[in-house]
Amino acid sequence: MKSRAAVAFGPGQPLQIVEVDVEPPKAGEVLVKISHTGVCHTDAFTLSGEDPEGVFPAILGHEGAGVVVEVGEGVTSLKPGDHVIPLYTAECGECLFCQSGKTNLCTSVRATQGKGVMPDGTTRFSYNGQPIYHYMGCSTFSEYTVVAEVSLAKINPEANHEHVCLLGCGVTTGIGAVHNTAKVQEGDSVAVFGLGGIGLAVVQGARQAKAGRIIVIDTNADKFELAKQFGATDFLNPKDYDRPIQQVIVEMTGWGVDHSFECIGNVDVMRSALECAHRGWGQSVIIGVAGAGKEISTRPFQLVTGRKWMGTAFGGVKGRSQLPGMVEQSMKGEIQLEPFVTHTMPLERINEAFDLMHEGKSIRTVVNFKD
Amino acid sequence: MKSRAAVAFGPGQPLQIVEVDVEPPKAGEVLVKISHTGVCHTDAFTLSGEDPEGVFPAILGHEGAGVVVEVGEGVTSLKPGDHVIPLYTAECGECLFCQSGKTNLCTSVRATQGKGVMPDGTTRFSYNGQPIYHYMGCSTFSEYTVVAEVSLAKINPEANHEHVCLLGCGVTTGIGAVHNTAKVQEGDSVAVFGLGGIGLAVVQGARQAKAGRIIVIDTNADKFELAKQFGATDFLNPKDYDRPIQQVIVEMTGWGVDHSFECIGNVDVMRSALECAHRGWGQSVIIGVAGAGKEISTRPFQLVTGRKWMGTAFGGVKGRSQLPGMVEQSMKGEIQLEPFVTHTMPLERINEAFDLMHEGKSIRTVVNFKD
Repeated sequence: MKSRAAVAFGPGQPLQIVEVDVEPPKAGEVLVKISHTGVCHTDAFTLSGEDPEGVFPAILGHEGAGVVVEVGEGVTSLKPGDHVIPLYTAECGECLFCQSGKTNLCTSVRATQGKGVMPDGTTRFSYNGQPIYHYMGCSTFSEYTVVAEVSLAKINPEANHEHVCLLGCGVTTGIGAVHNTAKVQEGDSVAVFGLGGIGLAVVQGARQAKAGRIIVIDTNADKFELAKQFGATDFLNPKDYDRPIQQVIVEMTGWGVDHSFECIGNVDVMRSALECAHRGWGQSVIIGVAGAGKEISTRPFQLVTGRKWMGTAFGGVKGRSQLPGMVEQSMKGEIQLEPFVTHTMPLERINEAFDLMHEGKSIRTVVNFKD
Repeated sequence: MKSRAAVAFGPGQPLQIVEVDVEPPKAGEVLVKISHTGVCHTDAFTLSGEDPEGVFPAILGHEGAGVVVEVGEGVTSLKPGDHVIPLYTAECGECLFCQSGKTNLCTSVRATQGKGVMPDGTTRFSYNGQPIYHYMGCSTFSEYTVVAEVSLAKINPEANHEHVCLLGCGVTTGIGAVHNTAKVQEGDSVAVFGLGGIGLAVVQGARQAKAGRIIVIDTNADKFELAKQFGATDFLNPKDYDRPIQQVIVEMTGWGVDHSFECIGNVDVMRSALECAHRGWGQSVIIGVAGAGKEISTRPFQLVTGRKWMGTAFGGVKGRSQLPGMVEQSMKGEIQLEPFVTHTMPLERINEAFDLMHEGKSIRTVVNFKD
């Protein structure tokens, strides 16, 4: 079948809106009609060419919502008409990792997903007879996409796709990092570095967890207003200080914060985030994705004196088990999604969404395939 | 009063056995007659001049056992005749850190201890009228030493000091790191980097915790026999491999170990230890003390894919609360101390103890003040 899609033909090039060919779903696969998709920094990272796993041509996008159109052989958990969110972190329930109860990092489709192909090693997309690669197992920048059954969370059909598509990545990652990775407790202090979609979601998660002080750090002070609405209590612009921001935070708090979150992908900020953590028990969670070859570093003394350095992917959330519940929470207003959607536009204007993001003018732009 | 002591008059110089003057204990202080002291790598590190906090002249030594001789004003928890182990990690029970229930990093005497003085800012040792600094709040290389009340654990008077002095540092650190910091569970896999006193204690702790596989790594294969006695199951000499040892461990185990411990103080080994930890949940504990200015580094991807990097000081053990119980465990054979003591000697030969350690010929040399 034919599908409108925004194709990344090469690194650093604008996406091109073309009509691609989509093959039907094979065994264990599902054809989904995407209704909405967010545009995330990770898409921009891969498009830039800096992602070592990036392959081209590809259909990017990994933060979507849609409806099942057709299921492949052996698919039992989904049927046409089901509402779904594609997952870049699958949940098979059977691999060592799913069975461990300790992590969401399912390995069922990991190897092929990283190469931009479906589990059988081939792609379902093509253009003029040439294969086009999948992306993060989702490829939500195509109106019709093929996704593995284990990579789809079935959600309440009443949910507003324009909002809940954001649970496919950023918002879930941020909220999940607070609850699953850091396990923030009532009264804890929190520092959030970077107020993009993920950082703002961390702020929401911290307020849900009844954190005490929520300190937010960004070089763009325009972000502070929304952070305040979400519950942030202290606002720091590193440009206002002539000393390292971790030092400012330690001074403000006495000994540092109980939890810090890096939501940018900058290894220097990751260091600041670790070093503003409380002596004795503070922990720092890396959420942002750093450029290829970049390394984090610190003095080991920081860890020997009780700080913990950790990271999270998709906020530690098991997509098929937990995402449906988060959709329900958003429908009850317990997770606010609407304020993240600063812009909406049709697929044809998707390159503007990247521009808005790079200029710091949007939190999230949601592309609406129905327009 | 006069006391025999091994004094470090300057960095890089052998210790000199001299008779120093010891002032009586002031308020909150206790005069202890040391009967035995271990010689630890940390003493050698400071003696080398590499320790940025090192001050000279000083009386080193922090792994001792002795008997209370006299108590200063206001001391209520100890009396002359009590058997004690000096603690370089105090436990006041009242500071933010003691009260947190989350850490053993008491701050009550921390600031002055780091400067080599007692809490009132002065020293109790002098030689020819010149002050001699304290070390780690212990200075167990003096037959008579003055220690803060909060820095003394009262132990069973029946305990053998030649053995339990080792609970003042290395053995407690290693065993504590397993139970308090990593929280090793039955069946978990463990990798131990470096088989000095601490590394061997980690092996003991891992066996106590009923770990499954206990992989030990050392470039000195002579250490493997004792590690095997203590419960190690796999033995790796990095010199036998032409690829990074973390890669060897990941291959051996499938996905890495549940827990790894760095017991050397080498930042490159710290990286290896982190990177051999299991994807999804593996954690790596830094125990070794690195040289001044040294930094650890890794790709953030290691953390984002579920590894945790942490550290420990004194194995997370609260000395006054927990050390007495560890002494009891050693008396029942639940902690084996005797195999660590490869050499004993009188104070006069203490420089030989450093030589044996540097040459890798000893696990621990215990200096006996009674000889």
